[in-house]
Amino acid sequence: MNYAVLLAGGTGTRLKSSKIPKQFLELGGISVLESVVDKFLVCDKIDKIVIVVNEVWLDHAKSLLVSDKYNNVIICAGGATRQESLYNGLKLIRDKYGISSDDKIVSHDIARPFITLKIIEDNIKALDNSRVADTVIPATDTIVKSENNLFITEIPKRSQMYQGQTPQSFYLSDFIDLYEKLDKEYLDSLTDAARMFVENGYQVALVKGSEFNIKITTDYDFMIAKYLVGIK
Amino acid sequence: MNYAVLLAGGTGTRLKSSKIPKQFLELGGISVLESVVDKFLVCDKIDKIVIVVNEVWLDHAKSLLVSDKYNNVIICAGGATRQESLYNGLKLIRDKYGISSDDKIVSHDIARPFITLKIIEDNIKALDNSRVADTVIPATDTIVKSENNLFITEIPKRSQMYQGQTPQSFYLSDFIDLYEKLDKEYLDSLTDAARMFVENGYQVALVKGSEFNIKITTDYDFMIAKYLVGIK
Repeated sequence: MNYAVLLAGGTGTRLKSSKIPKQFLELGGISVLESVVDKFLVCDKIDKIVIVVNEVWLDHAKSLLVSDKYNNVIICAGGATRQESLYNGLKLIRDKYGISSDDKIVSHDIARPFITLKIIEDNIKALDNSRVADTVIPATDTIVKSENNLFITEIPKRSQMYQGQTPQSFYLSDFIDLYEKLDKEYLDSLTDAARMFVENGYQVALVKGSEFNIKITTDYDFMIAKYLVGIK
Repeated sequence: MNYAVLLAGGTGTRLKSSKIPKQFLELGGISVLESVVDKFLVCDKIDKIVIVVNEVWLDHAKSLLVSDKYNNVIICAGGATRQESLYNGLKLIRDKYGISSDDKIVSHDIARPFITLKIIEDNIKALDNSRVADTVIPATDTIVKSENNLFITEIPKRSQMYQGQTPQSFYLSDFIDLYEKLDKEYLDSLTDAARMFVENGYQVALVKGSEFNIKITTDYDFMIAKYLVGIK
């Protein structure tokens, strides 16, 4: 089976104008959360959708997804880190449906509401040729590295640099096997799933994202998102 | 003296919707070019402004800047590469005004019309403590490196990664000395001035840019720019 695991664990501390986490803000008449779930619902290659939410917001998330169309959607509580939240969602799948060797996971950040059907399908397709896939766009700005936040250490070749988006996609069994054998402290330090795979010997294929697939982190992003939803 | 060198050499091939280079498109009632020049005019620490334009667009650029307020603005023709265009602008300064050891250059990309007075002033100030300064913001997306455009090679630590913007600022004499002793092929390969300095042993200080200081490259960017100009 193909599962979407939607991560909404954040509490949105970088969005200064709002006390509500960004995933529950309204964008085009519905919450960001609903808008992302609806994008995955139209993909007939996704069998089930699991949403991982910060425990405090569990009831609120449930109250948004009461319509019949959300019958295949399961909501569960996240963990202390992004990686643990993802693992919680995957454990729920394993406990509820078991694991089959061809179970695929498309994990997506709820803060990216402009995900398209094509990007979701391209992620699933990429797993035919690679165990892991990561959605990226070529970096538009020159990327600069600084190890001390004061001076430039290196300016890597721009043609080799990409901005990571989500989805990040992989086989359910690979993630669980890796996660359960790795050191807890190391896992907590990881900011995304692709890194865990890259650093543990997996080949991670690039999937083409989109300029529109922005992540809502700051007030600036949310302002742009409100504009984009109006013109689409 | 402090000079602004504004780079408008591009022909804007990535902006598909327009045959006019982005720097001449209208944004908020005036051209992008004028809008950038006007930002630098309000900075009383900038003594002269040099604009480097693709030769084909020289007359057009001049026709936009006829008002008296542009009396301190000089327009010259660019070269085949970005670095050569910058050098052309600097040579013009040397030939016209001579070189003094404390002449500072704030070089800025015309495609970034949302530059602020604060960013310009911070660039000039940074040159009190460092020979070179580069304007950056912390990377919002995870940065991914791929050497073959197919698979991830590395995911560097996000906390050390920045998106380069402009201005890039430096001492006039440093640039000319370095440029005139370096190999032509190497210079042609450079996509920006900061790289030349970093790769030749200079310490380049980071100056804080802004999320709003976007570069207009694609149609998406221009659409966002039109929106931003309306709300500012």
